[in-house]
Amino acid sequence: MKYISLAHGNGGVLMRELIEDVFARILGDLLLDIESDATTLPMQGISGELMFTTDGFTVDPLEFPGGNIGSLAVHGTVNDLAVSGATPHFISLNAFIEEGLSFEQLERIITALGVAARHAGIRIAAGDTKVVRRGEGSGIYLATTGIGSRPSDVQLGTRQIRDGDCILVSGPVGDHGIAVMLARQQFGLHGDLQSDAATVLPLTRALLTFDGLRFMRDPTRGGLATVLHEIFRSTGFGIRVQARQIPVRDPVKIVCEMLGYDPMYLACEGRVVVVIDAAQANDALTSLQALELGEQAAIIGRISARDRHVVLETELGGERVLEELEDDPLPRIC
Amino acid sequence: MKYISLAHGNGGVLMRELIEDVFARILGDLLLDIESDATTLPMQGISGELMFTTDGFTVDPLEFPGGNIGSLAVHGTVNDLAVSGATPHFISLNAFIEEGLSFEQLERIITALGVAARHAGIRIAAGDTKVVRRGEGSGIYLATTGIGSRPSDVQLGTRQIRDGDCILVSGPVGDHGIAVMLARQQFGLHGDLQSDAATVLPLTRALLTFDGLRFMRDPTRGGLATVLHEIFRSTGFGIRVQARQIPVRDPVKIVCEMLGYDPMYLACEGRVVVVIDAAQANDALTSLQALELGEQAAIIGRISARDRHVVLETELGGERVLEELEDDPLPRIC
Repeated sequence: MKYISLAHGNGGVLMRELIEDVFARILGDLLLDIESDATTLPMQGISGELMFTTDGFTVDPLEFPGGNIGSLAVHGTVNDLAVSGATPHFISLNAFIEEGLSFEQLERIITALGVAARHAGIRIAAGDTKVVRRGEGSGIYLATTGIGSRPSDVQLGTRQIRDGDCILVSGPVGDHGIAVMLARQQFGLHGDLQSDAATVLPLTRALLTFDGLRFMRDPTRGGLATVLHEIFRSTGFGIRVQARQIPVRDPVKIVCEMLGYDPMYLACEGRVVVVIDAAQANDALTSLQALELGEQAAIIGRISARDRHVVLETELGGERVLEELEDDPLPRIC
Repeated sequence: MKYISLAHGNGGVLMRELIEDVFARILGDLLLDIESDATTLPMQGISGELMFTTDGFTVDPLEFPGGNIGSLAVHGTVNDLAVSGATPHFISLNAFIEEGLSFEQLERIITALGVAARHAGIRIAAGDTKVVRRGEGSGIYLATTGIGSRPSDVQLGTRQIRDGDCILVSGPVGDHGIAVMLARQQFGLHGDLQSDAATVLPLTRALLTFDGLRFMRDPTRGGLATVLHEIFRSTGFGIRVQARQIPVRDPVKIVCEMLGYDPMYLACEGRVVVVIDAAQANDALTSLQALELGEQAAIIGRISARDRHVVLETELGGERVLEELEDDPLPRIC
């Protein structure tokens, strides 16, 4: 088996081979140009506002049921553009590769990255690799930066949110967090729960047809609770959600009960939290449920100006304030 | 003293404080928007082709005479756009921060990054931070992706190169490589050689006024020799350079002689290698020498179709083939 050495990062012949034999061979026509210092973006047919986003990925382990760090990096950046109402077009890819990573694993990661990119309709317009010493880098870190476009009449953001708006989530929360945690095989726990990692573009496209759509966000690090806190902080409106409306898969519930995690704080990588005019919430729900990725979508609560907190109505009929995340339940999840 | 903990990367309250107290406080109005998933790029007044580039930075040590990893990350990406003939406008910033890095050092790095960004006239349009476990990450890694624009009539690239064209370098080579190496204080060596790290925009702007300009590149990893090999591989034309014309500072020469390095392969971070119509080479040289960063610019050789290699004429009057870099003389230099 072949492994990455420090010489694969030095700008010389081995680095050129790494780029050609792995990145160029696998990604093929997805790559715009890997020779130049900078690439001209083919902007023909692209109109509207240009949108820009970036993300870093350090997931441990690198591979888990439902994906790996390569697919995750594409989904993460595509989803940040999607929830902003944009269509993604181009992405840049930075890889920090640890000396000793096997070519076999690197190829699986780059293959999944290519599949995700093709699926989302984006091209890789710039790339760079660095090799770091054995022990640093945890296999591979990726950073991706995306460019998309959206029609200039799309108005989304917390500023659009009004009292009484409904809050939806597009599917069960916490699958990604628990799937990655189980893949670590700590605590003697095993399981085949799949990560929800996916591009949310089909969901956001369906939602963009509603003129009462106010805000979309993908609940990654910090989970659903963190998105609700962002809305609360930014609007000043309280939030009231019902625990029994929030979809959580049984394996996620079970692991959370065993280990004392709260699914509200667990990362998702293929879900959308939506704020929408209450008058359109049911129609939006129906649209989401008609899509494969949205079958278990649910209306989970409302913007509630008279509440001064993020309030969770518990399954037993009580209520409690959902605090902002302070300590990390599951680090290195994305 | 305050240090980065894993909780600074978890999407919760400590991470928000890190973003607000360090990144937002220091970078201020350079930051377009740090709250959204994706930012709208303000494209008013920007015309021509859009150019895109990305780079990762893993320099060890993080700080060295003449710069640190923060200024390096901005210069690297700005320079990739500059040598493509573009004006840089926006940059994204990814930071992989190691648990245990002091806030003090992080602030010095982000301060230098901000100074370099202001100097180059770019704004930071997207950012992300991840915290990795102690021992993984070597303090901090950065990845930056840049967007620039260039007039659509600019034609630069190896395809423009013709037999007989002159090759220039804008200043002494290898300063960055040796400055970083000395900062490691290995081999009992010390010195105050400054890195050449700088934005090369003033140089490329001056060169773009020449219609005989064919190609520009900044010789980073792999140094001048690697740029010459790229030209050779891409054009099929041989190259002939004169060792005594290539500017190398005395401290760089001395360290190279002591340790067996070859300055031709050492990284620069503020130099440009230029290929230009021989008829305009002297005027271009005069233009470069009129600039502070180009005072020691020199014509170092020619494109030479009848040579089948990259040929170096030595100071003693002989000649040798300059091989492609195989093993890394100085890893982790940028």
